Amino acid sequence: MAIDSRHPREIRAEIRSGKLAGVTAGLARGFVQANLAALPREQAYDFLLFCQRNPRPCPLLEVTEPGSPEPHGVAPGADLRTDLPRYRIYTDGQLADEVTDATPYWRGDLVAFLIGCSFTFEWALLDAGIPLWHMEHGKNVAMWQTTTECRPAGRFHGPMVVSMRPIRSGDVAKAVTVTARFPSAHGAPVHVGDPAALGIRDLGRPDWGDPQPVGPGQVPVFWACGVTPQAVALASKPPFMITHSPGHMFITDLPNSALAVL
Amino acid sequence: MAIDSRHPREIRAEIRSGKLAGVTAGLARGFVQANLAALPREQAYDFLLFCQRNPRPCPLLEVTEPGSPEPHGVAPGADLRTDLPRYRIYTDGQLADEVTDATPYWRGDLVAFLIGCSFTFEWALLDAGIPLWHMEHGKNVAMWQTTTECRPAGRFHGPMVVSMRPIRSGDVAKAVTVTARFPSAHGAPVHVGDPAALGIRDLGRPDWGDPQPVGPGQVPVFWACGVTPQAVALASKPPFMITHSPGHMFITDLPNSALAVL
Repeated sequence: MAIDSRHPREIRAEIRSGKLAGVTAGLARGFVQANLAALPREQAYDFLLFCQRNPRPCPLLEVTEPGSPEPHGVAPGADLRTDLPRYRIYTDGQLADEVTDATPYWRGDLVAFLIGCSFTFEWALLDAGIPLWHMEHGKNVAMWQTTTECRPAGRFHGPMVVSMRPIRSGDVAKAVTVTARFPSAHGAPVHVGDPAALGIRDLGRPDWGDPQPVGPGQVPVFWACGVTPQAVALASKPPFMITHSPGHMFITDLPNSALAVL
Repeated sequence: MAIDSRHPREIRAEIRSGKLAGVTAGLARGFVQANLAALPREQAYDFLLFCQRNPRPCPLLEVTEPGSPEPHGVAPGADLRTDLPRYRIYTDGQLADEVTDATPYWRGDLVAFLIGCSFTFEWALLDAGIPLWHMEHGKNVAMWQTTTECRPAGRFHGPMVVSMRPIRSGDVAKAVTVTARFPSAHGAPVHVGDPAALGIRDLGRPDWGDPQPVGPGQVPVFWACGVTPQAVALASKPPFMITHSPGHMFITDLPNSALAVL
């Protein structure tokens, strides 16, 4: 994977101008990337509460003022309408448009939620010497909808989505402690070793992403996934929602280490 | 300090019946205690967002459904109207009453916020062999309003309140790592060693609680304090609010270790 080590401000400027339009994996190495979900103020309390009650799949990094596209806390000066490479526009839970500039769709009552992303803990795993098959092979991580229900909040309810990474059994404990340091990026695994306990029937057929082989001596390790809040929000069919397109994340000014609690 | 090691359910039943009416320090050893702030739904979004933006002073453990006095997530079956020993009732930011049963004041639009408390990390410090002067001497910890502003949210804004514990300089690093494991109980210190940096002029004169001597070879260590959300909520003069009385906390069913991230 090509690595772009410039500061997030420079990279966001190129995204804003249209020079960069692809997925953000490998961009701004060492900086936190985030999932975006922007909802009308009327749905914002329930969604904020849903995130508070389900911090593993929905770790909140930032919630903007209604109508403001600037995420003061994580990237002062950035503009959430233009600084992501690609957006999805949903009306009544249906995909209505996919755009590279969300300005025409922005509304004065929108509240933007930025939610932590597994990129942060994947760098931590790599730095700890734990190889990740999907990154070595240029694939997307494998993801499943589970039979584990999130704790509901108002209109929002639904199952937790998890991502799976095959980890060498001797590395499992290290993988747990390394990722536990980053609760704002999904934290420690939610499950180790038994797909059936999560209602996953076939490790070879993920619901999203690419299949990954679980080799001899490897254990399937499951982390809560940032696809959860989007899937849950969509299932409740909010009248209007803007999200990032898969893989086209918002790049913050926070170094990954800023999310470490220890 | 006398230690009562029964399960929180038994202790809450005695509080509910009026048999126990004092402060909760030392009760239900090993279980998480919480600050209470109950506000009308109309102010709940701003307060929830305030807590999300200020997780060190306002670590949220639970937010109830509007009108429901049951904190499902942390103490199923408990009743927040009766299971704390003492409550304060505020109207327009003024203390209106102090009661041992909040049932007559409960309203169908109230949302209860339970916020982590330093009792959890104090047990962790003691378990790690770090003595705490105020506990050894049966005093309240010393607290100050700082010049550090919280990040505002809607109608809620105000300065962070901190508590201070004198720590032997050789124990400071251990005190940091031990408490960092508990972000839901204020986490790591927000400052070590320089009261002036927080706008604290006289360590001998706290704004709340009792003075504590900082002996030779000791360093003043400051943690964000759960008095912050109450002080901030009151400063914004909400039309109605119910809180616990100082020291008279809600005892949850969560073991302290359940809050440890690592």
